[in-house]
Amino acid sequence: MKTQAAVAFAAGKPLEIVELDLQGPQAGEVLVEIKATGVCHTDAFTLSGDDPEGAFPAVLGHEGAGIVREVGAGVTSLKPGDHVIPLYTPECRECEYCLHPKTNLCQSIRSTQGQGVMPDGTSRFSFEGKPVLHYMGCSTFSNYTVLPEIALAKVREDAPFDKICYIGCGVTTGIGAVAFTMKVEPGSTVAVFGLGGIGLNVIQGARMVGADRIIGVDLNPAREALGRQFGMTDFVNPKDVDDVTQHIIEMTGGGVDYSFECIGNVNVMRQALECAHKGWGQSCIIGVAGAGQEISTRPFQLVTGRSWRGSAFGGARGRTDVPKIVDWYMDNKIDIDTLITHTMPLSDINTAFDLMHKGESIRSVVVYD
Amino acid sequence: MKTQAAVAFAAGKPLEIVELDLQGPQAGEVLVEIKATGVCHTDAFTLSGDDPEGAFPAVLGHEGAGIVREVGAGVTSLKPGDHVIPLYTPECRECEYCLHPKTNLCQSIRSTQGQGVMPDGTSRFSFEGKPVLHYMGCSTFSNYTVLPEIALAKVREDAPFDKICYIGCGVTTGIGAVAFTMKVEPGSTVAVFGLGGIGLNVIQGARMVGADRIIGVDLNPAREALGRQFGMTDFVNPKDVDDVTQHIIEMTGGGVDYSFECIGNVNVMRQALECAHKGWGQSCIIGVAGAGQEISTRPFQLVTGRSWRGSAFGGARGRTDVPKIVDWYMDNKIDIDTLITHTMPLSDINTAFDLMHKGESIRSVVVYD
Repeated sequence: MKTQAAVAFAAGKPLEIVELDLQGPQAGEVLVEIKATGVCHTDAFTLSGDDPEGAFPAVLGHEGAGIVREVGAGVTSLKPGDHVIPLYTPECRECEYCLHPKTNLCQSIRSTQGQGVMPDGTSRFSFEGKPVLHYMGCSTFSNYTVLPEIALAKVREDAPFDKICYIGCGVTTGIGAVAFTMKVEPGSTVAVFGLGGIGLNVIQGARMVGADRIIGVDLNPAREALGRQFGMTDFVNPKDVDDVTQHIIEMTGGGVDYSFECIGNVNVMRQALECAHKGWGQSCIIGVAGAGQEISTRPFQLVTGRSWRGSAFGGARGRTDVPKIVDWYMDNKIDIDTLITHTMPLSDINTAFDLMHKGESIRSVVVYD
Repeated sequence: MKTQAAVAFAAGKPLEIVELDLQGPQAGEVLVEIKATGVCHTDAFTLSGDDPEGAFPAVLGHEGAGIVREVGAGVTSLKPGDHVIPLYTPECRECEYCLHPKTNLCQSIRSTQGQGVMPDGTSRFSFEGKPVLHYMGCSTFSNYTVLPEIALAKVREDAPFDKICYIGCGVTTGIGAVAFTMKVEPGSTVAVFGLGGIGLNVIQGARMVGADRIIGVDLNPAREALGRQFGMTDFVNPKDVDDVTQHIIEMTGGGVDYSFECIGNVNVMRQALECAHKGWGQSCIIGVAGAGQEISTRPFQLVTGRSWRGSAFGGARGRTDVPKIVDWYMDNKIDIDTLITHTMPLSDINTAFDLMHKGESIRSVVVYD
């Protein structure tokens, strides 16, 4: 079949809207009509050429929602018409990781996914007879895409695609880091470094689980109002204080119970760890640092009871947890609408990247016709 | 009263055996006759002058066992004749830390303890009319010493002082890191870096809680036999492999569930973290690094599910947990006798430091007459 898609033909160049050939789903695969997709920093990172694992040409996009249109042989958990969210972190429920109680990092299709192909080692996309790669196993910048059955979360049918697509990455990454990875308790004190899309979702995750005090940290004073709307109780602009770590330790009487780094800056990761409370403070790295960069601290920080941890896809087991987060949205426990600042057709997708680079959007969503 | 004591009059000099004046216990304090004391690396570290918080003259020693001889006003939990183990990490059961479920680092007397004095700001020891400082709140290198009530664990009376004194520091630090801090589960795979007194106790702690595979790492091949005696199943000498991290990842099919650094070497701390399993591996720093040294890694190590943690006094709440460890020893769940390689009278205490520096002892114990 044919599908409209925004294709990354080369690093550092705008996406091109073209018509691709799409092979139907093979055994264990599912054809999905994508109805909406977010445009995420990770797409921009790969498009920039800075991602050492980035390969071209490829159909980017990993934050989508859509409808199952066809299933391949052996697919039992999904049928045409089902509403789904693609999962760049799949959940096979059979591998050593899925069967371990402490991780969500299903490894069953990791190597082929990393190479931009389906588990059988080939791509379903082609352009003028030449293969075009998948991306993060999702490729939601194509109106139709093929995914493994294990990489699709079935979700309720009354949830709007143009909002829940964001649960495919940013919402889950932020809220899940609080709820699933760190298991923040009611009454906790939390610090959130970086109030972009991830940080704001961490804030509302902390509010949802009952944190008492939620301190947001950002260089941009314009983020204060938005942060407070999502549950932030205190705002710290590092420009206004001598030492942000010491400032947070003082304002909390010893440090926070949980801190989250949502930027990808290794110096901020250290600040986040060191403002955690002696004895029990835990710090979670969510942001992705540049290649080769390292975090450092004195080991005494850990020996005296702090823990340094990290979270990928919010610790969520996608098929199990993503439907729950859709419920939280539909039950108004979390706000997604406010975070989606821009909506556009596929033909304007490059505008979404521009808005992101200028810091003018929290999240742009492409809605297919 | 008078007491025999080994006094550190100055950094870098041998201890001197002298008779000190000892003031009786004030309100909330307890006079203890020390019956036996271990000599620990931390005593040597302070005596060397490298400890930035070390102060002189002082009565060192923090790993003892003895008998209560007198209690001050208001002491209710102890009476003369009780057998006790001094606690350099006290347990007041009232401070913010004691009431927090995730830490053992009672802070109620921390500042005075760090200054070498009792909670009222004065020392009970004096020599020729001048005060001599306490050390870690214990000063077990004196035959008689005074401690706050909250810094004494009451233990069973049939346990031998010359063995259970080691529970006052090394045994609890190693076994507690496994049992209390990291809560290692039965069936776990564990790596232990450094097979000195702490590392061997980590090994037997891992055996006690039911770990399946316990990998010991040490540059000294002579430590292999001792390690196996305590439950080690595999030995790795870093001299015999290209890359100890990669070697452990390969021999375990992905890394260990838990790793412990028992040396104080920041490079080994990194190895210990990075040989932990993706998704769920946790690494615990026990060793004390030199002043100003820092640990580093790529944040990706944490984002992909590893946790970097630390342990002090094995995460044990002293008054609550130390008596349990004494029971474990008396029930033969753990072996202390083999680890105590040398015993001597107080007059020979400097020999204990020599044996430690030469690597000839695991633990020397001074037994008072």
